Amino acid sequence: MSDAADPPAPRRTYDALLSDIEAGLGSGQLRLGDRLTGERALAEKYGISRASVREAVRILDVMGILQVPTNAGPKSGPVIVSNPSLGFSAALRFHLAAKRLPVADIVETRILLETWAARNAPERAELAGLEEARALLEAMDAPGLDPEEFHGLDARFHVALSRLGGNAVVETLMEALGSSISGYIREAMEAAGGSPEVLDDLKSQHHAIFDAVRDGDRQAAADMIQGHVSWLHDRAR
Amino acid sequence: MSDAADPPAPRRTYDALLSDIEAGLGSGQLRLGDRLTGERALAEKYGISRASVREAVRILDVMGILQVPTNAGPKSGPVIVSNPSLGFSAALRFHLAAKRLPVADIVETRILLETWAARNAPERAELAGLEEARALLEAMDAPGLDPEEFHGLDARFHVALSRLGGNAVVETLMEALGSSISGYIREAMEAAGGSPEVLDDLKSQHHAIFDAVRDGDRQAAADMIQGHVSWLHDRAR
Repeated sequence: MSDAADPPAPRRTYDALLSDIEAGLGSGQLRLGDRLTGERALAEKYGISRASVREAVRILDVMGILQVPTNAGPKSGPVIVSNPSLGFSAALRFHLAAKRLPVADIVETRILLETWAARNAPERAELAGLEEARALLEAMDAPGLDPEEFHGLDARFHVALSRLGGNAVVETLMEALGSSISGYIREAMEAAGGSPEVLDDLKSQHHAIFDAVRDGDRQAAADMIQGHVSWLHDRAR
Repeated sequence: MSDAADPPAPRRTYDALLSDIEAGLGSGQLRLGDRLTGERALAEKYGISRASVREAVRILDVMGILQVPTNAGPKSGPVIVSNPSLGFSAALRFHLAAKRLPVADIVETRILLETWAARNAPERAELAGLEEARALLEAMDAPGLDPEEFHGLDARFHVALSRLGGNAVVETLMEALGSSISGYIREAMEAAGGSPEVLDDLKSQHHAIFDAVRDGDRQAAADMIQGHVSWLHDRAR
């Protein structure tokens, strides 16, 4: 076989703790909002140092599985949460920086996911589902918006639209990609020298996409999303 | 706006270290294969404890950005690697356990990515690109294979095919999903009670998909992948 066997999974002192948390989540013994046992008790139970427990907790914190209270009293352990996009975003950002995931491939994947979501949105997108996208669209129309703020609203607008596809994994991947590609959106806008024409084009494309989704014209929405994302990526190059 | 502002990013003692590594990767100052400065020097530079440095290193280890040598001498710092799928897989597995990412949505996303890759494979898949898929196909035909081993080969076969689409992000997401869904593949096979008929169906579907990809019949390959993945998911329910 051309490919060697998978590398052996490295063993860490806290691996048993991580496995038990994963198993607890799977069996329902651990639920969202539950507080983890204190650091000292966990260290004793697994026969590992408190520093090792802390490492495991930080890893789950970065993955968006645990939330560590900032002003931790002796009894306030970390809380089980589920923020799937956090772990993805963090991992994606680093790998993008390491240039192993080319921007062009991220853009192509984003188009694949967003157009799928548009084609799978409800025939006439229900008002509740569209409310957030509409609010973001209006917020982006405010004159004199700070560029950073605009990029943030822009990314959230695309995530809000992709949520209409009704697939939690697609939505999560879009959130992760969204925060990873804010870099090239920024570059595109800077390359345009803050030109008001480019910003106006961008806004009117958003409005056209929103209108198509609202009217249930799903293929048109998908086509416009493809054109819009490609157009923006071309400007950043 | 219906949605509140994003939660503020929590600050950790090692945040500056993580940011500098990300920036170093982005600027090219840090390259794959480079060894990170020793723990003590990093602790001094950032004015944090050695335990904090260790936490940051573990986080990057879990994300597949650093590889920590197992028998670490005093001078052997962690090495910069880039294993994008590691971080995704780990995060996905936990969130899947927390039931926030339903299996049906993962299956649907997998079909979306795999069929895209099949439709975007070279007209007649080049022999080099197909070599790994062919070797995996042959390995799965071996009689009396251990079920665990079969599932591993199965997952790698699908990743090898999705690589032909030529998009590193799609391939990475497929790797991540592949390791997350091995659970339901196992359930499907157990539900079938190890029936040789089901295993034979599975194998002949793999062969038909491979033949279509090899012959450049991309739409047929995409259709068969969709049928194959759905069929397997149905058996697990």
